Amino acid sequence: MYSFKNDYAETAHPRILQAIADTNMEQDEGYGLDRHSENARRSIGKRLGEFAGKADIHFLCGGTQANLTAISAFLRPHEAVVAAETSHIFVHETGAIEATGHKILTVPTADGKLLPERIEEVLELHPDEHMVKPRLVKISNTTEIGPVYNLAELEKLSSLCRRKGLFLYVDGARMGSALMSEGNDVTLADLCRLADAFYIGGTKNGAMIGEAMILCNDVLKPDFRYHIKQKGGLLAKGRILGVQFEELFRDDLFFHLARHANASAQAIAAALKKTGFEFLTDSPSNQIFPILPHSLIEELQKDWAFYVWKKMDGERSAIRIVTSWATTEEAVANFIGAVEKD
Amino acid sequence: MYSFKNDYAETAHPRILQAIADTNMEQDEGYGLDRHSENARRSIGKRLGEFAGKADIHFLCGGTQANLTAISAFLRPHEAVVAAETSHIFVHETGAIEATGHKILTVPTADGKLLPERIEEVLELHPDEHMVKPRLVKISNTTEIGPVYNLAELEKLSSLCRRKGLFLYVDGARMGSALMSEGNDVTLADLCRLADAFYIGGTKNGAMIGEAMILCNDVLKPDFRYHIKQKGGLLAKGRILGVQFEELFRDDLFFHLARHANASAQAIAAALKKTGFEFLTDSPSNQIFPILPHSLIEELQKDWAFYVWKKMDGERSAIRIVTSWATTEEAVANFIGAVEKD
Amino acid sequence: MYSFKNDYAETAHPRILQAIADTNMEQDEGYGLDRHSENARRSIGKRLGEFAGKADIHFLCGGTQANLTAISAFLRPHEAVVAAETSHIFVHETGAIEATGHKILTVPTADGKLLPERIEEVLELHPDEHMVKPRLVKISNTTEIGPVYNLAELEKLSSLCRRKGLFLYVDGARMGSALMSEGNDVTLADLCRLADAFYIGGTKNGAMIGEAMILCNDVLKPDFRYHIKQKGGLLAKGRILGVQFEELFRDDLFFHLARHANASAQAIAAALKKTGFEFLTDSPSNQIFPILPHSLIEELQKDWAFYVWKKMDGERSAIRIVTSWATTEEAVANFIGAVEKD
Amino acid sequence: MYSFKNDYAETAHPRILQAIADTNMEQDEGYGLDRHSENARRSIGKRLGEFAGKADIHFLCGGTQANLTAISAFLRPHEAVVAAETSHIFVHETGAIEATGHKILTVPTADGKLLPERIEEVLELHPDEHMVKPRLVKISNTTEIGPVYNLAELEKLSSLCRRKGLFLYVDGARMGSALMSEGNDVTLADLCRLADAFYIGGTKNGAMIGEAMILCNDVLKPDFRYHIKQKGGLLAKGRILGVQFEELFRDDLFFHLARHANASAQAIAAALKKTGFEFLTDSPSNQIFPILPHSLIEELQKDWAFYVWKKMDGERSAIRIVTSWATTEEAVANFIGAVEKD
Repeated sequence: MYSFKNDYAETAHPRILQAIADTNMEQDEGYGLDRHSENARRSIGKRLGEFAGKADIHFLCGGTQANLTAISAFLRPHEAVVAAETSHIFVHETGAIEATGHKILTVPTADGKLLPERIEEVLELHPDEHMVKPRLVKISNTTEIGPVYNLAELEKLSSLCRRKGLFLYVDGARMGSALMSEGNDVTLADLCRLADAFYIGGTKNGAMIGEAMILCNDVLKPDFRYHIKQKGGLLAKGRILGVQFEELFRDDLFFHLARHANASAQAIAAALKKTGFEFLTDSPSNQIFPILPHSLIEELQKDWAFYVWKKMDGERSAIRIVTSWATTEEAVANFIGAVEKD
Repeated sequence: MYSFKNDYAETAHPRILQAIADTNMEQDEGYGLDRHSENARRSIGKRLGEFAGKADIHFLCGGTQANLTAISAFLRPHEAVVAAETSHIFVHETGAIEATGHKILTVPTADGKLLPERIEEVLELHPDEHMVKPRLVKISNTTEIGPVYNLAELEKLSSLCRRKGLFLYVDGARMGSALMSEGNDVTLADLCRLADAFYIGGTKNGAMIGEAMILCNDVLKPDFRYHIKQKGGLLAKGRILGVQFEELFRDDLFFHLARHANASAQAIAAALKKTGFEFLTDSPSNQIFPILPHSLIEELQKDWAFYVWKKMDGERSAIRIVTSWATTEEAVANFIGAVEKD
Repeated sequence: MYSFKNDYAETAHPRILQAIADTNMEQDEGYGLDRHSENARRSIGKRLGEFAGKADIHFLCGGTQANLTAISAFLRPHEAVVAAETSHIFVHETGAIEATGHKILTVPTADGKLLPERIEEVLELHPDEHMVKPRLVKISNTTEIGPVYNLAELEKLSSLCRRKGLFLYVDGARMGSALMSEGNDVTLADLCRLADAFYIGGTKNGAMIGEAMILCNDVLKPDFRYHIKQKGGLLAKGRILGVQFEELFRDDLFFHLARHANASAQAIAAALKKTGFEFLTDSPSNQIFPILPHSLIEELQKDWAFYVWKKMDGERSAIRIVTSWATTEEAVANFIGAVEKD
Repeated sequence: MYSFKNDYAETAHPRILQAIADTNMEQDEGYGLDRHSENARRSIGKRLGEFAGKADIHFLCGGTQANLTAISAFLRPHEAVVAAETSHIFVHETGAIEATGHKILTVPTADGKLLPERIEEVLELHPDEHMVKPRLVKISNTTEIGPVYNLAELEKLSSLCRRKGLFLYVDGARMGSALMSEGNDVTLADLCRLADAFYIGGTKNGAMIGEAMILCNDVLKPDFRYHIKQKGGLLAKGRILGVQFEELFRDDLFFHLARHANASAQAIAAALKKTGFEFLTDSPSNQIFPILPHSLIEELQKDWAFYVWKKMDGERSAIRIVTSWATTEEAVANFIGAVEKD
């Protein structure tokens, strides 16, 4: 049984573990003030274009923690989030944002991508103090169902947000995959320029745990460490986050791993398309959603683990195939073989 | 410069790192449902006496996260915590408990240990709905300033709590040190019997990160995973917590490491006592607070890192020396030498 | 200009003001422990059938306060509300429920009435700890857009809730109108039997301010006064709520006022139907939503205040007409005349 | 039995009730946007000296609601309140402030008055992100145990707050009594100049219910109505608050009532001092705390209701006598007679 269920089925890229082992017995400062966290901040910082050295960078343990810490830090009590109805914060975080006091206003999307028109409709429906005040737009890149925002789309969202006084925050749990996807024209420097804050996910791209929060807007920077601590995210051994991101950004390991994950998924996608299968969404990333007949799904389930995502009709369902830095070429080839054989 | 500032200056015991490396490329379930977390729960579970197999065990990332997740899960909105005024949740967690909506009612202590009489006074002062309702007593073992609860003390606290309808919750960030301290007569089985919930700290006793929450009272068990997730503590790669606790409790590694930490601190304490120095508290654990003349403190600060804890008078201050699983015999001997030389 | 904008445009029925004046200089206990609040609880209690003398009754200032106090008292942090997407708590309370930490899961409705099937769909979509746990179903009677639940509908909702372990809570801001509406077959005793808690709105039915919260389920009763106090709803001069409800339920004043409000709206509705106009919803209560041509709406706006609720097409919109205990027969006749003249 | 237990034992000054009756059947806007609320804002506004027409004024229902709405609106999640350990928000509001997520840091006081030195100590103890960040100083005038701040004291507090970046917020539940107390040299204009926000209590000075929140600092003004609504304080019939404050500030009714309350208490105090009794605090306001022998207390309790506040020794306790706008001359004379007779 080989698993394509998610991109966190293995622990970490061997270079990450080696880096942790190499620095193990060094005595260092706690709470993210160690030299490795400093190095990691510098390495990431250098890749931010005109924001190099200007953005604030903090390390957190996981995506839900990153989202709830950032959003509760950015908003006043009556302010609300606008997000896609498929967004992770709305569906799969056990009400973490609401638990900090904030409503999430959702809009329908075709492919997980938030359109400016939908945001404007929300604004029109929330004109006064009897309703919450929309204040932050949250998007995910890649989206939760595969697609990736291009630069023009981000420019439009950013422009709307600035005109309307909304913060733009990007959940980048799979930012590596987004940036390395075929056809992507967005850079980390663009994200700094267009968003107010975003995070770069490590957990789903080769790290053991860890997400790097990038605060670009000066207004959002003060006291962010207080929020991390209050929400339980300031690790005594923050160094383990620092060491990991130091290694991921020492050279281009972070990007190599994402490229590998994408290539694995896209190889499967290409084979399935050739065989004639359709897809739920047009995804260039490490998550693909092929629509397969139930008989084939059952056959595949004997040797492969994956989620059945959505029933399409009486005969077919979309499944979710997720690849990662750890996906082997052999697994990809075998899976393609299993489909083609059918 | 050698650091006695805390017990999290190094990363993790080499056996922990080895266990993570050994299981690195296994594909496993996410969110703490992996086989290693299961094994770890079983191993810890076996040490709980009559509660073996009955307590619920969950793994979390750190102490603040453990405390805020547990306390907010246990209490209704109007219910409050009673704790020592020196307690970590009151002083050093950036209002994490209050951020979940609950007041902490504090009482003064001589040595960080909560006395039943003080709790009864709090109850008398909170008789009706114009005030919060005290509902949970939180103690730390070891306390934040070194001392350790003995069995008779815990029995009395537990008995009062049961009579008054209060939950008893034990913050065990340094539980290993408490259980291995000279003169300790408390076991994990006793804690299960006397407390409603407690956690066993890994971060400060050889793990990279991780705390094991033990829920003994059936009332507190349902839906606890929802609370972990909502507060951002449910790691996708929960396996890294499982693997660590599996290794710590595979044999008696957890206890050996705590014993080493205690022995290191107590060796320093013994030497200082012999030299004639007094201590802020009578601590058998891995944290000691000798009172030293300012001239000696300054001299020691050239080669050693530690916190100056409290000014005692114009000439002397208490300093905090913390040892750990990683403290070397050489460091202990050198430090003693440095003091004696003076 | 005469207003049909809402049912709180005037202050209070003269008998209410007289009762306040009559008891003005009596010295009495604070915080709802006065003799008039006691009397009011008794009078309401008598009308609860088999729950007479068994339900707990508390007085609050307004609907948002009643809703947020009750829902936050009833739920644990990870539990969520299921409500209609048109529900007041979701749309028009500035995120008051989310501000206490709870997500509201909404379902679409045809007429503001929640169907059991929609609730079951929500339950199926929320199977585990990665999502909030649906725990309370909130309906409004009358609904926010006019219709009224009948007994069979409430029986089905209640039955589903009990089977699934959900609380059923009824927002009764316009409960008087619901109970007095043509064709209604629900009594206060039925509500006690079928719901776990509900409130009877005074503000919109002749009181100056005040809502009576009825707690039927024993599980929800303990410590409710703590929650009222904590949320800022425990008035020092709670007597003013008691005196009002004492007067409203001294005889059948409460019901007479609601019947008057309904009759006023229904007289207008009948005339409009006769003239051939359609309605957005089929409402037997004091809120009606006739669909009128824009030219007529503009004409009416010269002499009458009301909300334009929803654009139906290029030529017509639904408007909202709300009547109350204070609506004069003359106003009703004039409004009908104005429409018919057109 | 005559009650000196509090200043809310009767309903409202007859002029207040008359004003409500006189405007009863006027149709007006909801939610505090009515003409009477506008008038009341103008009348109060005129008394604010250089802040006339500049401060924002909002009406709320009660003290706890006013405090929790303001403080949660003013603070970010990690920010804390500094208050006297006797302060109402800390002791008698059922954790209302903590329920909005904020810690209250308390300091001891001799007489309920916060000293700048105590605040500076709190600041020194809270230097970094492991602790909450003190951000708002809350005082009560009159204090909860009678004394009143003079101008020099307020100037010092305000100066410290501005230097340290702290908001100064004044709970004015008994502001009328404070401003009318013998020796007072503070005006509403001074409060505007020195505090960032404060409220003028109506409930305890002749209104039925209602407190007027004055926002002086521009930073605190935006969106305050959202906060009132979210916390359940925006009354549909906000006019009843407007009508009351319109009447209280139409002429000097508000101040006359407070002067009467003070005079009543001070007459009793003078008689008791003459008789030789001591007092717990030196109070010029409508709350006095004479220390009486237990035998006298028991004797008085036959005809008078009051709180026994604090046991002083085996033979004497301090009692609390509260007078109000409604206290009769006869009651004062009789009470004095009863004491003197003894």
